[in-house]
Amino acid sequence: MPHSAHEKKRVLTRVRRIKGQADALERALEAGVDCGTVLQQIAAIRGAVNGLMSEVLEAHVREEFGQAARSDAQREARVVELTSLVRSYLK
Amino acid sequence: MPHSAHEKKRVLTRVRRIKGQADALERALEAGVDCGTVLQQIAAIRGAVNGLMSEVLEAHVREEFGQAARSDAQREARVVELTSLVRSYLK
Amino acid sequence: MPHSAHEKKRVLTRVRRIKGQADALERALEAGVDCGTVLQQIAAIRGAVNGLMSEVLEAHVREEFGQAARSDAQREARVVELTSLVRSYLK
Amino acid sequence: MPHSAHEKKRVLTRVRRIKGQADALERALEAGVDCGTVLQQIAAIRGAVNGLMSEVLEAHVREEFGQAARSDAQREARVVELTSLVRSYLK
Repeated sequence: MPHSAHEKKRVLTRVRRIKGQADALERALEAGVDCGTVLQQIAAIRGAVNGLMSEVLEAHVREEFGQAARSDAQREARVVELTSLVRSYLK
Repeated sequence: MPHSAHEKKRVLTRVRRIKGQADALERALEAGVDCGTVLQQIAAIRGAVNGLMSEVLEAHVREEFGQAARSDAQREARVVELTSLVRSYLK
Repeated sequence: MPHSAHEKKRVLTRVRRIKGQADALERALEAGVDCGTVLQQIAAIRGAVNGLMSEVLEAHVREEFGQAARSDAQREARVVELTSLVRSYLK
Repeated sequence: MPHSAHEKKRVLTRVRRIKGQADALERALEAGVDCGTVLQQIAAIRGAVNGLMSEVLEAHVREEFGQAARSDAQREARVVELTSLVRSYLK
């Protein structure tokens, strides 16, 4: 998950950007840049991780709720799963 | 929103608890308690506010997706609304 | 804490604003406003709580580190306390 | 920053762990694991990034406030810098 090639690519692009940011942070720390700059880089990574989490949840919603459920049981299972995802990660 | 009496009551109970926590914090500040205790109270309020946001989003999911959409257009509108809520508030 | 009349007033003003926001949220929920508006109000409260936590920590830093420590032991104790506050609440 | 070899090593170890977690997440996404697992991995990265930010701020406090200031002006400058770091990143 996400299953569609389009969603998967968007999510992977975000993950690779985060890896690039972590590489840049590692180099900055090795070069001994000042604390304010380091914290700014870490805050940017935190923002990117939150954006990634949102993207994955949004893709999940589009993929799971974009088509009608085949049964009441399936609809109920989707709702239970999504509410539990929201509860776990909205923190 | 939330519309059902049950969801509304759960959400209102959380809001009233947060008001009680804010009252207790105000009294603690007026009484001059130490910084660690004050920060602990503020962290508890922050946790309660996150819990409230999760509860409201969960109620929205249950109420909007608990019944089959009446049309593809309605289903699509629900998905767009929910992904936009996730994007705005998962931060 | 905070001890100075000025810091105490700033912090109390923030707490009272949060109480006002929680009151407005309660009324909005009772009036049955839509989910997006409710989440916006909760997000505003979350921002205000984060601002309050920052204000209290900043006041702590100003009050504890604004004067020279009377001894190495006092300086060390202040540093241990502040790092532990940062660790606990930067989350 | 941080300047001491010990602090620098602790911070770099955390950054490398985050890079490892991002690698594992990339592989999991490519392998198509389910949404709940992916979100769990992202939440773990978010926790690690918060821990890293806390570590850097703590190191800053230890390094800047661990020795007595050479002058009132230096003490004041340190306090202003730290309160501004707290304000910017406690969010």
